Amino acid sequence: MKVLGIDTSTKVATIAVIDEEKVIGEYSLSKDMSHSEKLIPMVKEVLDNIELKIGDIDLFAVGLGPGSFTGLRIGVATVKSFAHLFDKPIVGVSTLEALAHNMYLNNSIIMPMLDARRDRVYTALYRFEDSKIEEIESSQILEIENIKEKLETYSSIIVNGEGSLVYREEIKKALGKKVKFASSGQNMPRGVSICELALEKYHEGKRDDLFTLTPDYIRPSQAERELKEKR
Amino acid sequence: MKVLGIDTSTKVATIAVIDEEKVIGEYSLSKDMSHSEKLIPMVKEVLDNIELKIGDIDLFAVGLGPGSFTGLRIGVATVKSFAHLFDKPIVGVSTLEALAHNMYLNNSIIMPMLDARRDRVYTALYRFEDSKIEEIESSQILEIENIKEKLETYSSIIVNGEGSLVYREEIKKALGKKVKFASSGQNMPRGVSICELALEKYHEGKRDDLFTLTPDYIRPSQAERELKEKR
Repeated sequence: MKVLGIDTSTKVATIAVIDEEKVIGEYSLSKDMSHSEKLIPMVKEVLDNIELKIGDIDLFAVGLGPGSFTGLRIGVATVKSFAHLFDKPIVGVSTLEALAHNMYLNNSIIMPMLDARRDRVYTALYRFEDSKIEEIESSQILEIENIKEKLETYSSIIVNGEGSLVYREEIKKALGKKVKFASSGQNMPRGVSICELALEKYHEGKRDDLFTLTPDYIRPSQAERELKEKR
Repeated sequence: MKVLGIDTSTKVATIAVIDEEKVIGEYSLSKDMSHSEKLIPMVKEVLDNIELKIGDIDLFAVGLGPGSFTGLRIGVATVKSFAHLFDKPIVGVSTLEALAHNMYLNNSIIMPMLDARRDRVYTALYRFEDSKIEEIESSQILEIENIKEKLETYSSIIVNGEGSLVYREEIKKALGKKVKFASSGQNMPRGVSICELALEKYHEGKRDDLFTLTPDYIRPSQAERELKEKR
């Protein structure tokens, strides 16, 4: 079974193709760029080199954020089109869970962070139990000044994701020696992690519906908020 | 400081560009293919997309194996040419250490494995002490039937790399519950891990010499062995 996974919820555009056993191709770019321009050429580049066609893919996987509205919409719309066109299943994966999966088998508490601007992060808490990822706290917005309080009961935490870079000094000051910072390669969403988690969910029967699958924006967009205020 | 790293010691061709803070681009392909055909186009593909020229790279990094003779030679020769042509420093990194680095911050013993054929693996033992990788046993060939004995004193081991897939059943049988298998995304050499370790070594003053840097073949090539026998 071949899985193609995409995540465009952050500045990083990442795509991967895996089978049940290994990674066949992975390509990630982090640059202030238009995901709408780069995403399809990246998919084509990888598929051409591994000599597969988009119709050879058995399962489509996509990162659902939380993250940038525009980025998320491009990734989700693209993957939905593929799944629709080739009549194949689709599975959405939380980008936070995918970031946590980058730390697979680590036995600290994993706290992935995406920048939510104005001294806040999108975050969630995970740990690995018997080689399986377990969500301790679900996706939420956290004021960075409340991080010490939030993690009081834990003795060893690993933070990763772009948010952990943006607020590195604040996190260090609040948590001291009980926090460790992931490596650069573990800090970015990876197409491979999206694929692996989607494959696991697929085998557990957790398939998503093409027409109802929506990204996790957490906060409504500014346009939606303005519309609501007007009403 | 921008680092370009390459590893071609296995079936995977992987290249990455990082700066001190983050990954800018990473591209990996695993396919029975000629590294000699694919490597330069992969480097060009990534550099073009992140709008850098090869002359913008400040440090060149390369995986030294152990691994395939032909693959290693292509990777090392390519990176040496870049460093020579642009008069930039070069740092070589053990592919086993780079595989262990995929498990950064894990607190088990990490045992990366590359397939050495005929029921043997190239391996080494690592652990992370205070966020820094530490080599417990250096690069060696291990008969897979001796793995239980070798790891008797350790209570928790993580294996990764292609070798751990090839001998998965034997490893499971020998080590039972004290071994865990890494994820697909952690099993392949990553350009990013080569870059990160090279950057660390560079800052510690461990730079390699362009003219004496050689891959770690462990065993002499078949051609060399035949020549020696003849003599």
